[in-house]
Amino acid sequence: MSTLDDLVTEFARLPGVGRKTAQRLAHHLVQQPGERLARLAQALVQVAERVRPCTVCGNLAEADRCPICLDPRRDAGLVCVVEEPAAVASLERAGEFRGTYHVLGGRLDPLSGVGPEALRLEQLVARVRAGGVREVILATNPSMEGEVTATYVQQLLAGQDIRVSRLARGLPMGGDLEYVDGVTLAHALSARQELR
Amino acid sequence: MSTLDDLVTEFARLPGVGRKTAQRLAHHLVQQPGERLARLAQALVQVAERVRPCTVCGNLAEADRCPICLDPRRDAGLVCVVEEPAAVASLERAGEFRGTYHVLGGRLDPLSGVGPEALRLEQLVARVRAGGVREVILATNPSMEGEVTATYVQQLLAGQDIRVSRLARGLPMGGDLEYVDGVTLAHALSARQELR
Repeated sequence: MSTLDDLVTEFARLPGVGRKTAQRLAHHLVQQPGERLARLAQALVQVAERVRPCTVCGNLAEADRCPICLDPRRDAGLVCVVEEPAAVASLERAGEFRGTYHVLGGRLDPLSGVGPEALRLEQLVARVRAGGVREVILATNPSMEGEVTATYVQQLLAGQDIRVSRLARGLPMGGDLEYVDGVTLAHALSARQELR
Repeated sequence: MSTLDDLVTEFARLPGVGRKTAQRLAHHLVQQPGERLARLAQALVQVAERVRPCTVCGNLAEADRCPICLDPRRDAGLVCVVEEPAAVASLERAGEFRGTYHVLGGRLDPLSGVGPEALRLEQLVARVRAGGVREVILATNPSMEGEVTATYVQQLLAGQDIRVSRLARGLPMGGDLEYVDGVTLAHALSARQELR
């Protein structure tokens, strides 16, 4: 049936969702009241319409600036550099960090053709040059590409009169920041090491 | 951020999708082009609008009758009774069955308050009484409730001059028809046993 197959196809495009899972989800939803499906559809449309990058940090926002950049209680002198918005969400759930973020929008990956120009690096340097930033914490993923990206950012900021640190080793190599539990993240944050 | 949280909440309502998976899916989707999200939303809306039960067998349909009931090459004298539309999809993928279906819409489950009146049993009896049905194959799930349901349907049809069979044992007890692989299903179908 084409209508249901369309839904299965769309679900199967999601990361980690195979054909069987997509079928299970679609068959579940088709049995739900129409308003359940409408609500999910509406949530998707609103995400597409409303969510955009924060003009300051690149995090997900529903206005020019994200709630973290807008929050006067957050320490704008402390900037945590992450690859993706999902990492911001993880760190926020850990609840340890009171500074602000800078979302690069990816990681350096020369093999996939992702160079520095694809990341929000100029904006990071501009933020630091504008003054008020005391410390940049590198919180890229503990993967090969994440390490390369962290080293690149460190060199990029070498001339600036700020402290550059990175999350404590303790994150499992090969992992993804998005899936690390809050306790490990909180520990890695408080034991962060300065780079010299 | 409430817009993204709404999407996470809707995803987390899906079967087998926990909060973390829901967050991962939402964060993936928010980074996709708007038309991707619109397409998924559209697929959901169309399922809600177009899909309804087949008036003959209770399977998912986009018209009064489902494609299987409408197909003149299918043997309407052979009726396979299943709990849910997902089981029809599984059996169709196995590709062994050339008859038609009857979807009960659930299983007897007295502990959860699901009695015979909640299932499409009257419609099944009416189909058999209308004539033309030679055999009813019971293909409820190989679970306790599925077995109870099969026995109930068998007794319900005891007075009729038809053959009643059930899928061969070989399905793993406690499993769900939706997840059984096609080879096992095809074997269970061809080796089905008549009930006396």
